[in-house]
Amino acid sequence: MVDQLSEAEREDALDGLPDWDHDEARDAISRSFTFENFSEAFAFMTRVALLAEAADHHPEWSNVYNRVDILLTTHDAGGLSERDIEMAEAIDALVD
Amino acid sequence: MVDQLSEAEREDALDGLPDWDHDEARDAISRSFTFENFSEAFAFMTRVALLAEAADHHPEWSNVYNRVDILLTTHDAGGLSERDIEMAEAIDALVD
Repeated sequence: MVDQLSEAEREDALDGLPDWDHDEARDAISRSFTFENFSEAFAFMTRVALLAEAADHHPEWSNVYNRVDILLTTHDAGGLSERDIEMAEAIDALVD
Repeated sequence: MVDQLSEAEREDALDGLPDWDHDEARDAISRSFTFENFSEAFAFMTRVALLAEAADHHPEWSNVYNRVDILLTTHDAGGLSERDIEMAEAIDALVD
């Protein structure tokens, strides 16, 4: 089990993830990524899939051609946990 | 360019795709797929991505863990075209 972040922990974490939006209703974070084309977008998705499987922590995500939308939350924790923050940082490291 | 299917053509096509739902508002077809786990789901997505890139016809799709939702329509045609029907048949052939 993993704990939901406290409000202070969440604020600290979000300060470190300026490209992610906080969905208050779901206590989730999301980010949209745009690539040159589908091939580039799916290559990115494959890298995220490998991260997700290695961490056993999987995104909710969608793709339309060159766009990938990723949402992270921890169902078991009822909202954001440290696992989401770590995954967001790892995803950011792929593209930034 | 590719033409939107006529009503008669669409009805014929949908008769051949019993696992797909027709979204009348968007003139699109959609199907949900459920797998054992994320690894199986993403393996399927990779095969669909290869089909999509080869056909230069890409789905709108989302994934949450072991579930993959696929929607097909042809933006250039303003709705369903023969390209969607062919893609749906190719996707079905991966799983059925």
